[in-house]
Amino acid sequence: MTHYSAEQTRHMANAIRALSMDAVQKANSGHPGLPMGAADVATVLFTQFLKFDASDPHWADRDRFILSAGHGSMLLYSLLHLTGYADMTLEQIRNFRQMGAKTAGHPEYGHATGIETTTGPLGQGIANAVGFAIAERHLNAEFGDGLVNHKTYVLAGDGCLMEGISQEAISLAGHLKLRNLIVLWDDNGISIDGKISLSDSTNQTARFAASGWAVSACDGHNPGEIAACLAAAQHADRPVLIACKTTIGYGAPTKAGTSGSHGSPLGPDEIAGARKALGWDYEPFVIPNDVMDAWRKAGSRGAADRAAWAARLAASPKKEEFTRRMSGKLPANFDAVIAGYKQDLAKNPPALATRNASQNALDVINAAVPETIGGSADLTGSNNTKSKELKPLDAHNYAGRYVYYGIREHGMAAAMNGMALHGGVIPYGGTFLVFTDYCRPSIRLSALMGIRVIYVMTHDSIGLGEDGPTHQPVEHVAALRVIPNLAVYRPCDAVETAECWQLALQDATRPSVLALTRQKLKPARLAYSAENLCARGAYEIAPADKKAEVVIFASGSEVEIAIAAKARLDAAGKPTRVVSVPSMENFAAQDKAYQAKVLGTERHRIAIEAGVRTGWDRFIGTDGTFIGMTGFGASAPAEQLYEHFGITAEAAVKAAG
Amino acid sequence: MTHYSAEQTRHMANAIRALSMDAVQKANSGHPGLPMGAADVATVLFTQFLKFDASDPHWADRDRFILSAGHGSMLLYSLLHLTGYADMTLEQIRNFRQMGAKTAGHPEYGHATGIETTTGPLGQGIANAVGFAIAERHLNAEFGDGLVNHKTYVLAGDGCLMEGISQEAISLAGHLKLRNLIVLWDDNGISIDGKISLSDSTNQTARFAASGWAVSACDGHNPGEIAACLAAAQHADRPVLIACKTTIGYGAPTKAGTSGSHGSPLGPDEIAGARKALGWDYEPFVIPNDVMDAWRKAGSRGAADRAAWAARLAASPKKEEFTRRMSGKLPANFDAVIAGYKQDLAKNPPALATRNASQNALDVINAAVPETIGGSADLTGSNNTKSKELKPLDAHNYAGRYVYYGIREHGMAAAMNGMALHGGVIPYGGTFLVFTDYCRPSIRLSALMGIRVIYVMTHDSIGLGEDGPTHQPVEHVAALRVIPNLAVYRPCDAVETAECWQLALQDATRPSVLALTRQKLKPARLAYSAENLCARGAYEIAPADKKAEVVIFASGSEVEIAIAAKARLDAAGKPTRVVSVPSMENFAAQDKAYQAKVLGTERHRIAIEAGVRTGWDRFIGTDGTFIGMTGFGASAPAEQLYEHFGITAEAAVKAAG
Repeated sequence: MTHYSAEQTRHMANAIRALSMDAVQKANSGHPGLPMGAADVATVLFTQFLKFDASDPHWADRDRFILSAGHGSMLLYSLLHLTGYADMTLEQIRNFRQMGAKTAGHPEYGHATGIETTTGPLGQGIANAVGFAIAERHLNAEFGDGLVNHKTYVLAGDGCLMEGISQEAISLAGHLKLRNLIVLWDDNGISIDGKISLSDSTNQTARFAASGWAVSACDGHNPGEIAACLAAAQHADRPVLIACKTTIGYGAPTKAGTSGSHGSPLGPDEIAGARKALGWDYEPFVIPNDVMDAWRKAGSRGAADRAAWAARLAASPKKEEFTRRMSGKLPANFDAVIAGYKQDLAKNPPALATRNASQNALDVINAAVPETIGGSADLTGSNNTKSKELKPLDAHNYAGRYVYYGIREHGMAAAMNGMALHGGVIPYGGTFLVFTDYCRPSIRLSALMGIRVIYVMTHDSIGLGEDGPTHQPVEHVAALRVIPNLAVYRPCDAVETAECWQLALQDATRPSVLALTRQKLKPARLAYSAENLCARGAYEIAPADKKAEVVIFASGSEVEIAIAAKARLDAAGKPTRVVSVPSMENFAAQDKAYQAKVLGTERHRIAIEAGVRTGWDRFIGTDGTFIGMTGFGASAPAEQLYEHFGITAEAAVKAAG
Repeated sequence: MTHYSAEQTRHMANAIRALSMDAVQKANSGHPGLPMGAADVATVLFTQFLKFDASDPHWADRDRFILSAGHGSMLLYSLLHLTGYADMTLEQIRNFRQMGAKTAGHPEYGHATGIETTTGPLGQGIANAVGFAIAERHLNAEFGDGLVNHKTYVLAGDGCLMEGISQEAISLAGHLKLRNLIVLWDDNGISIDGKISLSDSTNQTARFAASGWAVSACDGHNPGEIAACLAAAQHADRPVLIACKTTIGYGAPTKAGTSGSHGSPLGPDEIAGARKALGWDYEPFVIPNDVMDAWRKAGSRGAADRAAWAARLAASPKKEEFTRRMSGKLPANFDAVIAGYKQDLAKNPPALATRNASQNALDVINAAVPETIGGSADLTGSNNTKSKELKPLDAHNYAGRYVYYGIREHGMAAAMNGMALHGGVIPYGGTFLVFTDYCRPSIRLSALMGIRVIYVMTHDSIGLGEDGPTHQPVEHVAALRVIPNLAVYRPCDAVETAECWQLALQDATRPSVLALTRQKLKPARLAYSAENLCARGAYEIAPADKKAEVVIFASGSEVEIAIAAKARLDAAGKPTRVVSVPSMENFAAQDKAYQAKVLGTERHRIAIEAGVRTGWDRFIGTDGTFIGMTGFGASAPAEQLYEHFGITAEAAVKAAG
């Protein structure tokens, strides 16, 4: 380990401070306070502890650094630039927050290497980190210390710790004894509204300790103290919180220690004063050679470790499997496995709730795809997320593949994001569809980052019955469909469920939601089809015998109703065809000719979905008949609710009258 | 205080157990475990401590009891029936979870008296309770001990405490030193998936203590211990947690203490065994007279207190104001105040961001409406929620009217629900619109309960600029519009902002979201209109000179763009009219003739909104032109983003070409 004097460390830290205040000033927008306050902590971490090699940002066994306090993005950009990440040029720093730059207002995953996750919405980063740390321990259990053994470091602010999601993350991490997770709390006592004491009096170290964390504290401007805490954390038997007492906007002569330095440019005078106070006598964006050299040396200090790791990988019998998993590619036989399963289904089409169909699909999938890690937010038996194959992943057995997430929907979703970002695993997890509301901020981030996270959301309508309106989603499918880059699937039977699972797993750059029923459904897809019809998003599932006069579009549990209506309409001399719509997103991606063919030109246009109308006008026009919900549900047996709210074959027959 | 022997208490508690297991069995659906486990705790509370009078469920100074673990609804229904709430008949109990019954699967506010809030989504109740307790302390500060001095009791389960929202609630309550808040934790060590130890190892009492709560613990089946803890809690100087160690499904011979008793009927054999074990030798739904008499006595033991309170109110000089506030009626001059403000605006129409226009409106409103309590989740200066009038509401001054909620969007929203439910205050609170995702479960409950909570959501589009896609709502307005019974307002200038505030405040049975801009907008409403045009939801804001060939619909910041496009189209000989759409919900409530008139029949139909298209087809049809977003935003200055994403007057001109 290279040793730096406290003075050297502070001078290197000042490079971060200068770049941060200069970039924010040039952009006339941004947050100088955190980077200036946390610069010493970050410098000690990056120069002495973090295992990385800036020349190979994708090294699988690198330590991960997550800036949970994402508004302090200039801290991360400065670190990446100074340590020598090739794509984080000075030009990028100068273009902070400008159109097309890699240096967005908040760190955006995929914009530049070294950005491990998108942060900004507070609390997400620390909760992602729990997922990173789970993936690390799991892969360690499977591939050994030689290939996987790294830390996940988090820099979190007061905002992250006040968000409720942090409690879910902290308590889950403590329970799982994730000893490679280390959180550095930038304890600066300031938030946007002023002093933290305006709104909070929590003893944070006591709170973490209550969830089984090791805790320590240091002066966040004393490199020796910071290093001592980090050194002690290396060999903990549980996750570690290090409370780093810092001064926000450290160095700014009048704004340091105040909310005035949090989220606005400091202004030329204050910046000049800070340069003087810090002893940083250089022009904006200029880093003197000696400082840059020291930083670049820190950036390459992991090179030998990385080379040794690469040699171990090359010599490992598990090389191929490890490489495949980290690449995100599914096993070569995956499509064949699904095809075989679909053939089995065609032989004896089952009447099942789609949540049960999902469990059956998972029995097949989890046996064939060893990288899946399932789980549920305390609804395992209801979400049917635990296939035969899976053993619990817990502090006693990280090799397990099933996480009992507890009643922590938001924490589960954010942890799954972290697992997907870490790589090597494919996370899926369940709760009731109505509780997508609880994890919506993390679902949005799955979509924004374009990562493969699969949300298994059961009890997807009033069909759940007696639990009543608090548990009955009516607007949720519609509300999920408006999130960009999110695939929302609502399969109608076991075959569609298998197809939707296949699509969700194949799609490495998009998260998916599977909306599944509690109640049993008749099989609708009776003949084997080699093609994955759900990939089309919408397709004719029941053609008309003669030229159709009526078309009925439906999804999920309402396809059964549409098919029943068709039988009655056909018999009444009104030839009817039924289109199943498992995914509006996939349909929107089809070519115009296919869309036009599926949509047709029938005069009677009907859509049935046990939710709100929003989104269906594109299928039936604004004057078509929608059969669904217009308000909240009610508590009663499911069949009575369908009758009560008029979601029936009879209503469809009447509409075509 | 009436004293009961431990034996008497247990026998009374067994009445709850019997009703609960019988009702769940008859419904063949529900959760017997919690009511049977928590029956002793609830019996001690209701017979010895809770201040209430079943004959007057709306008594303003009653203690509130909140069943945060809402799945245990039969506990509450049993208590209401046994203590003699007139509407909670045995017939209702027998119809548990049936269509039209007051006894829904989870307690639904408004279905029966004594249900103080809707619970079921876990963690909401405990967070509502913080709002109840804030309202209580605030009204106490204004109206004195004689009129307002009551407790808020919560019964919470492990699920409530694992949800992240509970941390926000706990830390806020501790910070505010809400000494009349008492949480009874039903510590039964069981959740749906099995033992809590599967998923959690948190030391809950240490966690609460870390946030400044007083904590104690008791055997939840020992009436003496329970009473001792409750007695000690009466005079605390901070919120109190009482950990009550219980056995879930207490009395069930084989299922007690297991997840098997949590969420399913026990079955006839197990019920028979429980009857035997409990010494409860009565038929289903039969309560022996002595037990019923004892319960009814408990239900009326507050009658004298209530009468004394009523006498104090009658004699109080504040009687009229207190009564008005608790009724939810606005001050008589409210409409005149708004009219005066609109007249002032018309004299000199300002160019303002609508968030600033909102602050100006609040300066007027908060001076005229003393029952408003504002706040923000740590974005006070950005949300512009603190008007001149308001002083902080904190532990030193409960008479204040502004809550620094901290970085706790979800906790804020749930607390606002509690404040609105308590009555006597009208809560509003702010964050960025994108973070409606963080509080969506509570927003949904505002809507489901039909209560007046006002969400002030600023930075409502890519117009927020450099903070980038994590902070830019693109789907949020659409996603809020699908929630039933929620008014979503997106005003276009200072006048519309005032009108939307007026509507939000007048609407006592519906929550409202105000989506407001960060960026400055030109005034669009230049002439004074006595009518509140936003009440119509959509209206012609700029008519065509001649018969229109083009119609442009827009909301909020895009109305300015629509008006600019109109000028160019008019000049090019294409007469154009512009319709402002501040609220799709209000427009949907207009009569067909008005709707048809506003929609018109122009060939060129254009809508502009800096969000996704969803919802606009009803205005422009599926073949109209929508100018807005199709994916996530980006980090850059706002004007550049509008250009980049093509949300411009030019695009509208082109579309009409």
